[in-house]
Amino acid sequence: MAVELHPDVAVLAPLLGTWAGTGAGSYPTIEPFRYREEVTFGHAGKPFLAYRQATVRLDTGLPAHAEAGYLRGTGRNRVELVLAHPTGIAELAEGEVTVTEAGLVLRLASVAVARTATAKEVTRVDRTIAVEGDVLRYELAMAAVGQQHQHHLAAELQRTA
Amino acid sequence: MAVELHPDVAVLAPLLGTWAGTGAGSYPTIEPFRYREEVTFGHAGKPFLAYRQATVRLDTGLPAHAEAGYLRGTGRNRVELVLAHPTGIAELAEGEVTVTEAGLVLRLASVAVARTATAKEVTRVDRTIAVEGDVLRYELAMAAVGQQHQHHLAAELQRTA
Repeated sequence: MAVELHPDVAVLAPLLGTWAGTGAGSYPTIEPFRYREEVTFGHAGKPFLAYRQATVRLDTGLPAHAEAGYLRGTGRNRVELVLAHPTGIAELAEGEVTVTEAGLVLRLASVAVARTATAKEVTRVDRTIAVEGDVLRYELAMAAVGQQHQHHLAAELQRTA
Repeated sequence: MAVELHPDVAVLAPLLGTWAGTGAGSYPTIEPFRYREEVTFGHAGKPFLAYRQATVRLDTGLPAHAEAGYLRGTGRNRVELVLAHPTGIAELAEGEVTVTEAGLVLRLASVAVARTATAKEVTRVDRTIAVEGDVLRYELAMAAVGQQHQHHLAAELQRTA
């Protein structure tokens, strides 16, 4: 169904599609790791984009992380992120889209991290997502398991659809 | 990729697949409505199922709600739900699976509802999901916008894949 993008998320149009590439993760409590990732942003004509991703570890080829949720346009280039993680964590963030010559930069600052009883203690997740044409780069910083807020993930993906 | 179901979610096997059918919603603050829904439960060999659904209104045929997240098996038939809503809400619930002759009953009690700045005030969401062979029924009760916790949604879906 080809439906028009809702005006509240029109500024996010450069994100729409499927992206794949590789990323690297690090944190004081774990060994550095590399991963392959596929990301999809879709829409249904409503004021949000549906987002999901999944990664496999480069060393083993086995499924690693996944996450799914929504980017919610709230007007005047403001965006809210609501994201579920299979690790028992729900991530809420808010931020702003900056339109650039070749795409956009989206900076999202954590407003809440909710956790189930068995989830690891994650308390803050900030994200920056940048699209330049057919390249999407993101960085993610996290405060978790007693460590201060710091860099955790960076990836570069290419548009595949 | 045909990969074996993780032991921690093996009890959830009857949920796996795609389901479609109709439901009805009501709440003191809105007009009753009916919807068509499609639900998918999948897995990647990890100790969780990926869940997503989308509904369209029966009266207009237009997209209505959507939600996406994970059912996390934590052992001994215990399950945690982490769910993102495009309405700005993240829903966390915990509960237990009861195995029945023809399927299962999963009762999930709210443990947290996190909200972005612009989301409606939802404070509690409880769910019951029952599978009997190729039929999935669910009920959802909710406390929101100052109303007491009460019935909101009921649906009956048939397995389509």
